[in-house]
Amino acid sequence: MTEDVGVRAAAELLRGAQDILILMHKNPDGDTLGSGFAMRAALRALGKRARAACDSVIPAKYAYMSDAAKEDGDFAPGFVLAVDIASPRLLGDSLEGYAAQTQLCIDHHGTNERYAQRLLCDSNSASCCEIIAQVIDALGVPFDKYIAEALYTGASTDTGCFKYSNTTADTHRLAARLIDCGIDLGELNFTLFEEKSRGRIALEQSALAGLEITSGGRIAIMTVTQDMLAKTGCTSADIEGITPIPRTIEGVEAGVTLRETKDGLYKVSLRTRTVDAAAICARFGGGGHIRAAGFECSGNMFDVKCAVVAAIEAAF
Amino acid sequence: MTEDVGVRAAAELLRGAQDILILMHKNPDGDTLGSGFAMRAALRALGKRARAACDSVIPAKYAYMSDAAKEDGDFAPGFVLAVDIASPRLLGDSLEGYAAQTQLCIDHHGTNERYAQRLLCDSNSASCCEIIAQVIDALGVPFDKYIAEALYTGASTDTGCFKYSNTTADTHRLAARLIDCGIDLGELNFTLFEEKSRGRIALEQSALAGLEITSGGRIAIMTVTQDMLAKTGCTSADIEGITPIPRTIEGVEAGVTLRETKDGLYKVSLRTRTVDAAAICARFGGGGHIRAAGFECSGNMFDVKCAVVAAIEAAF
Repeated sequence: MTEDVGVRAAAELLRGAQDILILMHKNPDGDTLGSGFAMRAALRALGKRARAACDSVIPAKYAYMSDAAKEDGDFAPGFVLAVDIASPRLLGDSLEGYAAQTQLCIDHHGTNERYAQRLLCDSNSASCCEIIAQVIDALGVPFDKYIAEALYTGASTDTGCFKYSNTTADTHRLAARLIDCGIDLGELNFTLFEEKSRGRIALEQSALAGLEITSGGRIAIMTVTQDMLAKTGCTSADIEGITPIPRTIEGVEAGVTLRETKDGLYKVSLRTRTVDAAAICARFGGGGHIRAAGFECSGNMFDVKCAVVAAIEAAF
Repeated sequence: MTEDVGVRAAAELLRGAQDILILMHKNPDGDTLGSGFAMRAALRALGKRARAACDSVIPAKYAYMSDAAKEDGDFAPGFVLAVDIASPRLLGDSLEGYAAQTQLCIDHHGTNERYAQRLLCDSNSASCCEIIAQVIDALGVPFDKYIAEALYTGASTDTGCFKYSNTTADTHRLAARLIDCGIDLGELNFTLFEEKSRGRIALEQSALAGLEITSGGRIAIMTVTQDMLAKTGCTSADIEGITPIPRTIEGVEAGVTLRETKDGLYKVSLRTRTVDAAAICARFGGGGHIRAAGFECSGNMFDVKCAVVAAIEAAF
């Protein structure tokens, strides 16, 4: 039975904890990494040992946060904290054993599966980092430049740099405060939102050339195959940020991106303007937010597309 | 002789003015339109007659601001105010006669040519709208939803939605305040930053296919010809937002976009990461900001490219 807690209670739990293992989700994005690394720094500032763990390799663009020197060596966890992880399945093979012993989960997904003993979840927060910022405040740890950059990473990446409809006045207020902490804003934004490899540009070109539009222009589907990655010399790290593209087309209400993974699976991302993306993806065993959600599946690519289109049309 | 004034003095001038003509620059962007329309609304709220004028047709995406009903009919201007206009050449044919009688210019371009009698200019402001917001505050006019949407338009578009290096903590603080005024943020951001016509996507594909990279990868040049516009069914309004693309390529320090206009001219846009874009463009009779500037020229396209590349290389 999961107990819901507020910011203050979550901070009290952490204040009483020692040797904290922080879990971040596999295929990490800026928000889980920013949440995990900011939390690690805050707990270490309180004199505790803390380690942030992720099942996947951390993308090179986030190297400014992942510095191992800021982490304590191996220790037996006395407290397990999960950040931005809606489901134990997102822990990945090497960490999923910790699901049952997670004492606290801090999250902003309305679809959180309540696997932790205690849950601090606010689905109105655009990013998990916005909640983490409140917890760090409640812990009384001032934001240094490292914590500010980590929190900014989550606050900005989960909102498409303050562009998506989940952005609130609080998101901007947090950003202003973090900039006042002296983060290198121009450099950070360039790394997170602008810089693209030439291979990535070629990949985008190739994926856009195969764009499919259906349902009278209301649904757009983009496919990224292993073959496209090979031809453009891209790795999975280059794919980040490609999923919002189909939804940006005039008239499109639901944009679907299918990414073929190495093991023959598909990662399906759904971005919507009108319908509930999380509800549609939940039908395929996935989840997420009302305007951005996803799931994984296997099978024939055409059949996958048909099933997703049918589910979206049913939601229209 | 142009006199520099502060926010308070500018507000006093406007408080004493009647029948105000507000000039916005030709080929208008979100900042000149947001500044002009917000100012018009604020002056009308004080019981004055005000009209906002632009030499060009206002792009359809800005229709939420350009509502003619919010404007007073024709009147002989008693006071001329220019917003976001660095040079009289940007007024356009129908308005350039007003340059000599401009009593006040509010601007954020360090390259302002000081043509107005009084100038309120802060080149540290990311947008002219950030300065306009201060002037409206000094006038004592509360921000209604219309004013907030207009100011948000300038504050967000001139920073690439809070992404470019000109963004400051003040930019975010203003955004938070405007969101608190009840603007329809998700819809506005989608219109301003996400929505693209299918023609625009085809145009981007076509322009990217012809991308040229030189100077050992430090300069990227993209060309948009009239032929490309015709083939993709795009108008000049569809081009907005295309100029930042070349600079986003990994390793590129200066991105150049050449746009062929109907009358055989080229509009050259320069976006940089290291060198001073305004200084380079000034050599070609243009201007702008340190990281984003432009100029117009005519002649052979290849020669134009060579001249720009030589000027950038000299600045490296």
